Amino acid sequence: MAKIIECVPNFSEGRNKEVIEAIVDEVRKAKGVKLLDYSWDYDHNRTVVTFVGGPDDVKAAAFNLAKKASELIDMSIHQGGHPRMGATDVVPFIPVSEVTVDECVEIAKEVGKRIGEELNIPVYLYEDAATKPDRQNLADVRKGQYEGFFEKIKKGEWKPDFGPQIMNVKSGATAVGVRVPLIAYNINLGTNDISIADKIAKAIRYIGGGLRYVKAMGVKLQERNIVQVSMNIVNYEKTSIYRAFEMVKMEAQRYGVPVLGSELVGLAPMKALLDCAEYYLQLENFNIDQILEKRIEN
Amino acid sequence: MAKIIECVPNFSEGRNKEVIEAIVDEVRKAKGVKLLDYSWDYDHNRTVVTFVGGPDDVKAAAFNLAKKASELIDMSIHQGGHPRMGATDVVPFIPVSEVTVDECVEIAKEVGKRIGEELNIPVYLYEDAATKPDRQNLADVRKGQYEGFFEKIKKGEWKPDFGPQIMNVKSGATAVGVRVPLIAYNINLGTNDISIADKIAKAIRYIGGGLRYVKAMGVKLQERNIVQVSMNIVNYEKTSIYRAFEMVKMEAQRYGVPVLGSELVGLAPMKALLDCAEYYLQLENFNIDQILEKRIEN
Repeated sequence: MAKIIECVPNFSEGRNKEVIEAIVDEVRKAKGVKLLDYSWDYDHNRTVVTFVGGPDDVKAAAFNLAKKASELIDMSIHQGGHPRMGATDVVPFIPVSEVTVDECVEIAKEVGKRIGEELNIPVYLYEDAATKPDRQNLADVRKGQYEGFFEKIKKGEWKPDFGPQIMNVKSGATAVGVRVPLIAYNINLGTNDISIADKIAKAIRYIGGGLRYVKAMGVKLQERNIVQVSMNIVNYEKTSIYRAFEMVKMEAQRYGVPVLGSELVGLAPMKALLDCAEYYLQLENFNIDQILEKRIEN
Repeated sequence: MAKIIECVPNFSEGRNKEVIEAIVDEVRKAKGVKLLDYSWDYDHNRTVVTFVGGPDDVKAAAFNLAKKASELIDMSIHQGGHPRMGATDVVPFIPVSEVTVDECVEIAKEVGKRIGEELNIPVYLYEDAATKPDRQNLADVRKGQYEGFFEKIKKGEWKPDFGPQIMNVKSGATAVGVRVPLIAYNINLGTNDISIADKIAKAIRYIGGGLRYVKAMGVKLQERNIVQVSMNIVNYEKTSIYRAFEMVKMEAQRYGVPVLGSELVGLAPMKALLDCAEYYLQLENFNIDQILEKRIEN
């Protein structure tokens, strides 16, 4: 398999379809990258784009998107429900195949540097690319949002990693980082009592004392008249899907509630599911190179 | 993903390394195919080669291997422990990616025709390529082996599908067919009592009244001082790995024997393991296109 990196930039525009398409066009016309998905939300006033490709091509395309967004989006008039600090709000790079986290960090730095210097936008490296522990968590970096950043940026500890130490009025500031793929995973319960889903969510999620890489909340599925524990597994290599599944099942038992099933939302890396097969089948000495498709691509 | 077919020809030579390498070289020098594996056995006096590629390239390589074997192997002096009827004993084509069984059957027919007409070797189509029900089972086709075929071939019902209705003294006869990938899968038991592994194997295998696509036997692992149920799952789409695993566990319970673990021998298609994850996680509406790697390749 070739080196493949995924990039999932978020832009502060989810209403003007022309602007959204103009940004996405930068992926469509970029060489060597593939647009996997893009979706926008009116209330959030935000668009999420997903594309993949080799290191150099992803690097070039990510910068071009940020450049286009800096031309078309004016943060000084932006309103929306989702926390944000810039036109190109966040640019995560995600290692997918034959690429290390360190290689992605190098890419994040190169793209961050270009956004900072060529577009004159303050850039913060976050998560695995962070240069300080207090910049790892995106929520901490973005705290205060666009409006608050005019003051925040003046503080010594919030000097940007790249670009000017002064807010860009039109484009705001941008976070560029590296993270492992996030898995959106839901577990459906045989009850319509939302309080049970909420209690289970609280028990299994990190902030409630649960699994280190799980975010969770209870959600009501009106149509099926059931509730669901809706999760983000933010590091499936450390917190496997099967562990979240078994823990929800375990917690559901105390309420006498059965697990009806689960669902994977969107994409997941092959390894995330192979790990589950490996666990349940108690496979000894399993190696991902035993997967025919993997061998063929190598 | 491109069209990919796997071909696993078996040759009646497992002792003369020069001959073996000369045959394998036909894969190494063929364009558009990739050698995944080859292994030989002295006692069986037999070599198994595994390669993959697109339809046209696999077709060309398969014929060239059979041609080379017909030049270098003399069946009239061959001896070995494994049943065999020809220098190129059997040539199975296996659909791997974006290819239907029917497409593979067409390829088997084209390759069989060339082996029959150009190399003057009687050819029998078997399994999914069989032209009659009594030729589906390779063991039935090969019955009587090389030595018995001089008489067998004269019978009306054993007229070859291609080539002469007279045995080729030097090269014997060849079976060409299509099958789904076979999965070699073993389950280790927490006992050294081989009779328990044998009893479980008999209970779960097809001929014992067990699962339709499972062949199984008990095997002793001397070094670990345990026994194992060793299986071939000959159609993993119909008989999933997890079903074999759960059934062995179930049968082992009546002997008070724990399942220590299981192992996948060699290669398996991604789907065979994804099916297990899907079962154990009770995934609803799962689609293989949700696998990131699969989406990227498309």
